[in-house]
Amino acid sequence: MDMINSTSNPQIKLIRKLKDRKYRAESNFFFLEGVRIVIEALNAGEWITQLIVSRDLIGSAKAVEVVEEAECKGVAIMEVSKEVFESISGKDGPQGVAAVAQQKWTELDLNTPPLPGIWIALYQIADPGNLGTILRTLDGMGGEGVILLDHCTDPFDPSAIRASMGSVFSKKIIKSTSQTFMDWVKKNNILVTGTADSAKTDYRQYQYPKNGILLMGSEREGLPEALAAICNDVVSIPMAGNADSLNLAVASSIVLYEIAWQHKE
Amino acid sequence: MDMINSTSNPQIKLIRKLKDRKYRAESNFFFLEGVRIVIEALNAGEWITQLIVSRDLIGSAKAVEVVEEAECKGVAIMEVSKEVFESISGKDGPQGVAAVAQQKWTELDLNTPPLPGIWIALYQIADPGNLGTILRTLDGMGGEGVILLDHCTDPFDPSAIRASMGSVFSKKIIKSTSQTFMDWVKKNNILVTGTADSAKTDYRQYQYPKNGILLMGSEREGLPEALAAICNDVVSIPMAGNADSLNLAVASSIVLYEIAWQHKE
Repeated sequence: MDMINSTSNPQIKLIRKLKDRKYRAESNFFFLEGVRIVIEALNAGEWITQLIVSRDLIGSAKAVEVVEEAECKGVAIMEVSKEVFESISGKDGPQGVAAVAQQKWTELDLNTPPLPGIWIALYQIADPGNLGTILRTLDGMGGEGVILLDHCTDPFDPSAIRASMGSVFSKKIIKSTSQTFMDWVKKNNILVTGTADSAKTDYRQYQYPKNGILLMGSEREGLPEALAAICNDVVSIPMAGNADSLNLAVASSIVLYEIAWQHKE
Repeated sequence: MDMINSTSNPQIKLIRKLKDRKYRAESNFFFLEGVRIVIEALNAGEWITQLIVSRDLIGSAKAVEVVEEAECKGVAIMEVSKEVFESISGKDGPQGVAAVAQQKWTELDLNTPPLPGIWIALYQIADPGNLGTILRTLDGMGGEGVILLDHCTDPFDPSAIRASMGSVFSKKIIKSTSQTFMDWVKKNNILVTGTADSAKTDYRQYQYPKNGILLMGSEREGLPEALAAICNDVVSIPMAGNADSLNLAVASSIVLYEIAWQHKE
């Protein structure tokens, strides 16, 4: 196999372009790197389309295993020089293993059937770390996936992938406009629970449905009125001190684990 | 008042040095910037020793108010040029208002009396965002403060301050070695609840004391055995999916809100 030595190789240029959200959206691919996350993606099934390896940078037996496993699974392997790998890496100490993978998500439409299980809908979530952390918690509590409403941060942003600790590969991702979501909820009588600082119902004193959607507003604005209006109920988390709100991933996680507790077997 | 125009002014050099943890530790000062966080610090009392203002960058009425309020409170004000302000700022769009503040924390020793209320002890927490987020949740649920064990990230790191949303000014911070903490716990029969993935007690099926410490392990290693051994009990958060753990700030927050629920009035 030939090794790519030039940082201006056209394939390498395209891989570097995956750092830009715009090109990720156009291509529907994304870039991931590091031994641990590449293992998660390999184990999760058909995600990786190409493994990128720099033998000069590989330092651990685990990394060697990853390359062998990818070969066994028939994944295309691209060997690159140390310099080329460093040019595509976003890390200070690159581990010599990275991958290009295909994004997996679906778009909500009015004919989407009601979704079984616990879901979380996020309105204009802006921070990729928060989104990744919510996916990780959703995995922990046994939820199904996220519904991203309107302009959200990208679940395939490197920070989101990192924070998800691999849960981005196991949880379902649906994208929608707020309008389509609201129409779909009304059409199908979907049970949606919103959260808002001002809500009177304590999140601990509400009976969550076994199949339902927890709806969270954005970090900056919270939940817009139109979305609050389609909720069966809106709950709040009590705040005792000076802070007027919790971190979005924390608030989501506290309510998600309350739901998990109510429906545990 | 004279304006500082030179980025190599000795005072400006020292302010820039506050980006380094080492110099923060030596000087016991820290740097904070942005209108919102400076307001929080001003409202919290005697934190800010010097306000740094660049009139050319101030864009909002709120920022002008902050400067006036600081003047009223007798805070020293240093006027700097746009260029100088940009040289000390860590932000892309600096708001023209920053401050130098004095760190406030105490060191645990064997004569420290038992601490009333809910506390969280963090063993070698590494991520400043996690630490700030935990302070924010602690404020939300009515806890008293954090005890930082051994080598932890700095609560006065800009990322920690940002994530805390001002709670770094309202919650108490105590530093200790693990050894002193363990000796102090034993001497005073302090009630400590640990968390570990492997623990058999579900965090929801445990009665937390009204005055007690929740003890969390580090992001990487969890809770070391010696620390687990001084706990009254160790609880776990059930994990349903592929993920083997939750984000540390999320796990801390879920248990802290369970404690808050058990002791709400």
